[in-house]
Amino acid sequence: MAIVSSTDPVLSSFLFYATVVILKMMFMSFATAFYRLTKKVFSNPEDCKGFERSGKRLTPVMNDADVERVRRCHLNDLENIVPFVLIGLLYTLTGPDLYLAKLHFRIFTGARILHTLAYLIPIRQPVRGVAFFVGVLTTISMAVAVLKNANF
Amino acid sequence: MAIVSSTDPVLSSFLFYATVVILKMMFMSFATAFYRLTKKVFSNPEDCKGFERSGKRLTPVMNDADVERVRRCHLNDLENIVPFVLIGLLYTLTGPDLYLAKLHFRIFTGARILHTLAYLIPIRQPVRGVAFFVGVLTTISMAVAVLKNANF
Amino acid sequence: MAIVSSTDPVLSSFLFYATVVILKMMFMSFATAFYRLTKKVFSNPEDCKGFERSGKRLTPVMNDADVERVRRCHLNDLENIVPFVLIGLLYTLTGPDLYLAKLHFRIFTGARILHTLAYLIPIRQPVRGVAFFVGVLTTISMAVAVLKNANF
Repeated sequence: MAIVSSTDPVLSSFLFYATVVILKMMFMSFATAFYRLTKKVFSNPEDCKGFERSGKRLTPVMNDADVERVRRCHLNDLENIVPFVLIGLLYTLTGPDLYLAKLHFRIFTGARILHTLAYLIPIRQPVRGVAFFVGVLTTISMAVAVLKNANF
Repeated sequence: MAIVSSTDPVLSSFLFYATVVILKMMFMSFATAFYRLTKKVFSNPEDCKGFERSGKRLTPVMNDADVERVRRCHLNDLENIVPFVLIGLLYTLTGPDLYLAKLHFRIFTGARILHTLAYLIPIRQPVRGVAFFVGVLTTISMAVAVLKNANF
Repeated sequence: MAIVSSTDPVLSSFLFYATVVILKMMFMSFATAFYRLTKKVFSNPEDCKGFERSGKRLTPVMNDADVERVRRCHLNDLENIVPFVLIGLLYTLTGPDLYLAKLHFRIFTGARILHTLAYLIPIRQPVRGVAFFVGVLTTISMAVAVLKNANF
């Protein structure tokens, strides 16, 4: 018996939200590149070279506030979005209720988009903290559902 | 022909161990938060604000020894647990022997729990180094099994 | 109806390329360890201890140029290879054309191997930048294909 089929509505929904949050995570690379290029802040000597103007040498900078803020947000995405997609895929494989599954996917996606906005604008705390926590709880809730279908 | 079914014992076992190591990885966020809150060590100005007491201003701190130790452990988890779950899922899709599969899942899970304990307590080397290496070898062993079933 | 079978040629090909890029990513740990051990550059006091010779104490070093370069490359892999494998797996589940799928897998794998070489040798820019960008575009192209098969 197949556990997922190409017409499985939970999988179909997971495909959407998982792809959206991964694309959101990848967007952080472009945000980093934007600040690096506009502020001429690079980590590698070979990156500096192409942006030197006559008479002005560039050296690697590791502590630019804007670049580091985007990088912390990107790392936080890796720490939270990757677990969501992995646990979410295992959760999809266990054949959950469609309504409940969509609820998990949507809450997580909303929470992480809010988290990014709160980090980049920035919005005052505890907005970012709450968004982070809601995302974690959603993933843990799916993890519990997976464990109920697992066998050590 | 279905490659995995909801009653596949290898998948059922993988669901358990993959979820356990991902939850362990997510626990590092809470360990970081614990040190940040108890030591009042934050990376962002907006995080500092909520914890300022009258007459005492907080500024972002990037080099607290306890916080950075937990963060190194968390990054090491990302570098090792994510590959394990990804390779492990591909390995599960290839229909491996149940006994061998469980052996891989259990050794990896044990090794990474030991790695975290060795990092956070900390335990003297080479305990953490050995735990790291055992985890890597387990993942590579599954990767070799996947490659045998792959076709470039 | 099964969405993937053990004899599915797209899955079979994905198993190969996904495993290759994950192993490449894991190789960065060994590159880091190589520099740490040969240059005696460690982040943890307990790591320093085993390498102290009589009369010479070692202290943690956080800013060694070689080690940090490898670590930046490793983090860039996490930010790009993990999304590729996750999106690639979802893409494989949607039953894409074999020729197109292999094209995506091969371009990405080639781009990331070039990216690593460009980072570690290092090769002058814009080689690394172009390799990074090709990898991102390949993943986005698969993401678009997944979204066409998804249902929010």
